[in-house]
Amino acid sequence: MNALTVVFVAALFSLLVAFFYGFRVYRLRLPREAVETKKLTEIAEAISEGAMAFLSREYKVIGLFLMLMAVLIFFLLDNKVTTDFHEGIYTAISFITGAVISSLSGFIGMRIATIGNVRTAYVAKSSFSRAFEVAFQSGAVMGFGLVGLAILGMAILYSVIRVLGHTVEVHILMECLAGYGLGGSAVALFGRVGGGIYTKAADVGADLVGKVEKGIPEDDPRNPAVIADNVGDNVGDIAGMGSDLFGSVAEATSAALVIGATAALLAQNENFLLYPLLISAFGVPIAFITTLFARLKENGNVERALKLQLWISTVLMALLMGWVTNEYLPDTFVLGGKSISRWYVYTAFLTGLFSGLLIGLVTEYYTSHSYTPTREVAGAAQTGAATNIIYGLALGYQSALVPVLLLIITMAISNLLAGMFGIAIAALGMLSTIAIGLTIDAYGPVSDNAGGIAEMAELGKEVRHRTDKLDAAGNTTAAVGKGFAIGSAALTALALFSAFIVRSEVSSGRSFSLNILDPYVFGGLMWGALLPFLFSALTMKSVGKAALDMVEEVRRQFREIPGLMEKKNRPDYKRCVDISTKAALREMVLPGLLVLLTPLLVGYFFGTETLAGVLSGSLVSGVVLAVAKANAGGAWDNAKKFIEATAGGKGSEHHKAAVVGDTVGDPFKDTAGPSLNILIKLMAITSLVFADFFVHYGGLLRRLLS
Amino acid sequence: MNALTVVFVAALFSLLVAFFYGFRVYRLRLPREAVETKKLTEIAEAISEGAMAFLSREYKVIGLFLMLMAVLIFFLLDNKVTTDFHEGIYTAISFITGAVISSLSGFIGMRIATIGNVRTAYVAKSSFSRAFEVAFQSGAVMGFGLVGLAILGMAILYSVIRVLGHTVEVHILMECLAGYGLGGSAVALFGRVGGGIYTKAADVGADLVGKVEKGIPEDDPRNPAVIADNVGDNVGDIAGMGSDLFGSVAEATSAALVIGATAALLAQNENFLLYPLLISAFGVPIAFITTLFARLKENGNVERALKLQLWISTVLMALLMGWVTNEYLPDTFVLGGKSISRWYVYTAFLTGLFSGLLIGLVTEYYTSHSYTPTREVAGAAQTGAATNIIYGLALGYQSALVPVLLLIITMAISNLLAGMFGIAIAALGMLSTIAIGLTIDAYGPVSDNAGGIAEMAELGKEVRHRTDKLDAAGNTTAAVGKGFAIGSAALTALALFSAFIVRSEVSSGRSFSLNILDPYVFGGLMWGALLPFLFSALTMKSVGKAALDMVEEVRRQFREIPGLMEKKNRPDYKRCVDISTKAALREMVLPGLLVLLTPLLVGYFFGTETLAGVLSGSLVSGVVLAVAKANAGGAWDNAKKFIEATAGGKGSEHHKAAVVGDTVGDPFKDTAGPSLNILIKLMAITSLVFADFFVHYGGLLRRLLS
Repeated sequence: MNALTVVFVAALFSLLVAFFYGFRVYRLRLPREAVETKKLTEIAEAISEGAMAFLSREYKVIGLFLMLMAVLIFFLLDNKVTTDFHEGIYTAISFITGAVISSLSGFIGMRIATIGNVRTAYVAKSSFSRAFEVAFQSGAVMGFGLVGLAILGMAILYSVIRVLGHTVEVHILMECLAGYGLGGSAVALFGRVGGGIYTKAADVGADLVGKVEKGIPEDDPRNPAVIADNVGDNVGDIAGMGSDLFGSVAEATSAALVIGATAALLAQNENFLLYPLLISAFGVPIAFITTLFARLKENGNVERALKLQLWISTVLMALLMGWVTNEYLPDTFVLGGKSISRWYVYTAFLTGLFSGLLIGLVTEYYTSHSYTPTREVAGAAQTGAATNIIYGLALGYQSALVPVLLLIITMAISNLLAGMFGIAIAALGMLSTIAIGLTIDAYGPVSDNAGGIAEMAELGKEVRHRTDKLDAAGNTTAAVGKGFAIGSAALTALALFSAFIVRSEVSSGRSFSLNILDPYVFGGLMWGALLPFLFSALTMKSVGKAALDMVEEVRRQFREIPGLMEKKNRPDYKRCVDISTKAALREMVLPGLLVLLTPLLVGYFFGTETLAGVLSGSLVSGVVLAVAKANAGGAWDNAKKFIEATAGGKGSEHHKAAVVGDTVGDPFKDTAGPSLNILIKLMAITSLVFADFFVHYGGLLRRLLS
Repeated sequence: MNALTVVFVAALFSLLVAFFYGFRVYRLRLPREAVETKKLTEIAEAISEGAMAFLSREYKVIGLFLMLMAVLIFFLLDNKVTTDFHEGIYTAISFITGAVISSLSGFIGMRIATIGNVRTAYVAKSSFSRAFEVAFQSGAVMGFGLVGLAILGMAILYSVIRVLGHTVEVHILMECLAGYGLGGSAVALFGRVGGGIYTKAADVGADLVGKVEKGIPEDDPRNPAVIADNVGDNVGDIAGMGSDLFGSVAEATSAALVIGATAALLAQNENFLLYPLLISAFGVPIAFITTLFARLKENGNVERALKLQLWISTVLMALLMGWVTNEYLPDTFVLGGKSISRWYVYTAFLTGLFSGLLIGLVTEYYTSHSYTPTREVAGAAQTGAATNIIYGLALGYQSALVPVLLLIITMAISNLLAGMFGIAIAALGMLSTIAIGLTIDAYGPVSDNAGGIAEMAELGKEVRHRTDKLDAAGNTTAAVGKGFAIGSAALTALALFSAFIVRSEVSSGRSFSLNILDPYVFGGLMWGALLPFLFSALTMKSVGKAALDMVEEVRRQFREIPGLMEKKNRPDYKRCVDISTKAALREMVLPGLLVLLTPLLVGYFFGTETLAGVLSGSLVSGVVLAVAKANAGGAWDNAKKFIEATAGGKGSEHHKAAVVGDTVGDPFKDTAGPSLNILIKLMAITSLVFADFFVHYGGLLRRLLS
């Protein structure tokens, strides 16, 4: 079958699967006569409303911003080709398409999650394994829906641009497609940063007053911030994670297309050219087959079932791609001046694929309390909060060792075998199992919410116990998912960086050597290495400030609403949702500007070499910092849980010290850490999209100085 | 006067000044009849003994290690020159000389500090301004002694090698001198890492049991760890800081000589060649004149007096070097293929000189509680330890912005004007006021110790109040000193990196282009960026472990020694000193190996390009991390003091939260942060010394793979 057809079929099939699972979840209506139904529906609606309120306000801000960006793209990428094909227009269209699809994916994810959570809670009354299925299938809607939309959008854009620009060289057309990735990642910026701030402001605010000051349990309906907290889980872990990974797929694909299109043989033959898209396309049937294995016996081991999903999809994908490579790639082809065998490309794919799995497993080792590192952190809490913090930070730093080594190996092997094209393929390899990855990621917040709903609706201990078990497995896989997201972001950024170099070379007509010894490059490198730290400082302080607002509001409600503690009056959930929403939107401006303006200003004033230095610097320090932050946060969280389960339990000094670590870890793992994924990718894709502009008009200050 | 003569005269003059100030402090014998004398002497001797015990044991370990390194140098740098000049021998001799002089400087500093502290305490009984003078002059012994020894050693080595190797090209001779820097920095590794672990193990151990568990004040003689704590101040802030800065001077000078010697004109004319040494030499008279202004009225402002020292020496140095440049440098000369005016060199010098001052001042802004950032951290402690930690970490990250920008500007200007030679000169410019910088640095621990001694000898409130005022000023200037140490380490590392490139080019006979796009370079860059994090993880955990040992010992003594709390029995100070010593020596092995083996293994297996990548990566992420750690630590410390002085004071929840931050900050600012200075410099100097070996025998694995 022709490659483009395969992509379309896979995209439609993926959406069908999403619809299928979505329907299975949706038709599980709660029986009208049941006592809990009213309560359950009320709570679920409050969460759903809160989530939608946030999304709609966020999307307004995003919409405004997108228009500005689109205008910028239109004017900066003017027509330098001899035909009447205007690069700016098509890039802007790709950009808007990417942004809209990314937003849509986020919306679908949030919608199904807020439908799935209450149904999971309800089903958990009768069966553990059925509850698992409902949560898992809700996740699958997100996974398949997002992948389907991502490749469908790409395929349509590709077809349209190809037809309209049939007189233009293919590599210029592919450059326009990079706008698609930029659109996706721009939305992800708001999703990750804004969502990250939202969820942690609510979480920290709810805990500091509820648990610490008032001594009421987690998810207690008397806590005014409890709905905001549950909304936050969806906002951060569903919409944020979804747009992050959507961005990765779109960006890695554009990078591969931009690089691949410079190879004459690839550019001429569509089957070869679309190989990058085929990787994502063939990932769909594999993912679907894998979900069929997602069965659980009553009282089965959820964690194992979920991890098995990752293994199955990875192995099947490795096998299938062997056939695809044989079928769709020429024996050898010439790219970047060297001859590349198709099996080199396949090897690059494999290194990415397996690195992703390994990074996930190492992340689990460092953050699960089944292993030594997290237990050491828990032990250090015995001498107080300070030692707990020191050990947690050290764990985070150390945990970056293996992922960084794996990235180095992947990058080196794929680059040595297949040049910069190899790096892009490795990134796509890592992302090829993403439908399953996203399913598992989205499963987490759904079960977490289900637990919250069960608590608030007072469904009883047995139900809560079941949802807790579902949630616990979700926590572990969430850590795996975060490691995977960072790893794929790093590889994607590297692929984009490579594409940026290739495009700059094509635009400037000269070979690009990036000499570290050039002060303009080294200065860029230093500035780039600093950026992730600055960005983290901003996001961490934002969470602090937003949480402070929340704490004051929750305290006020406990003080001013009479009979709140005695359950005579209900708290004003909406106010808290509102505070989180406003804080998130306000606080994401500064870090957002830092990320977006840096490549534009550096490129304009200092030119492509300095910009390349900035990208490399932010990549190498950003990856380490992101892994360190995510894992330290995860370890503190689980160290606290370990202490609750074993030594002393809640209320002891030991436990209090662990709570400090957990609270510090919250913005680490859910805001600052994941936001860094966006930082490194977004700067790289911005550079790629505007590369042509920088080559022709950039380096203003540098020219003035020399 | 001929340049070499100037250097010798300046070296001897510097030693004379050191001797002069040393004599003035030493002759202040305590009156035998005074009641306190016996007590004071006892305490002072205990501190002095502890310090010497640590030094002698540390030096044994160092000695063994030095021999191994010397042998390695001898064998790896074999004779590849046609004459019978053996590079390995002379480099090994330089290496040993550097190490011995560095150790000697540390020894002298510790000796005078442990003599000065008790005299400061005693003099504080009668006069505040006199006490200041004694502490300041003790510091000056360290400052002038170290600088004198550093340039004397360099000058002697230079003369000897020049005579013995008169048949050999000058640039090869200068390469041998790089061994001197390596020796200095190798000792600094143990000084900073071992010393940093020692001081914080004792400090944290003493505080956790004494202040927190037993509720006795700081420096209480009943606390068994109190002597170890006071010893630690000397070990970390005197010996450690001294060997660190000695290393910087020696290394920056070698870098400048190696680079300069490749310029024909410079190599032929000794006056030009020795310009780098002249910078340090002319720094001596300037520093001496500056110290004459170190006067204080009774109840004068100590902090202002100390900061004035920095300003005076900076301004005078800027003026004098204008004359020196005019006198000793040729109008223009050719280096690295481009013609360089002497005023370009002077400008490079100035950028380094003033960057150093500015970095110091910015550091003060971020760490003093007179300004907003630290007050924000103090405010954040109101909502608990977690927010205090989050704000402190964010402050640290943010505080790196200006120093990194200053470094970029310095590096870019000096490089664009005078090539790699310019960078080395900028580093020396920053270090040119080091005699004053060290004086002020050493002043801090002397006053701190004086306070401790006053408390232990029960000299009364008035005396303690006076020493506290001296100490407070010392704390602020210590932060300035740390910022300065990091900044100069970064520039020195950059200079060494440049020298490494130049030497590799000379050795390989081809021009060196360091292409980031080469996977071998990029892989190195990633690994390099990871190293500072790994290294910090090791040192931070080491402090944690060592502190735990100390806590147990202090608890044991309180439990087992009857009447300790009632002052009927004395604690066993020696045991605690012993524990800190052993822990420090044991725990410095792993981080030490990481730093030393990385360049050797990378160079041998992957070659000079990858090694250059590692150096750049560790430099760019290391500087940010070092600044962030040092400043976060300083801010937490002062936030706690701010809360003590204003809101609520000791014992409140607010204060307890701040104590957590302070305890986390201790290893940040005194162990992990400063150790990173060594990491980046030591890897660079090791690469420089072994550059020739790597060029000829390195890259084993790379050759196998290609």
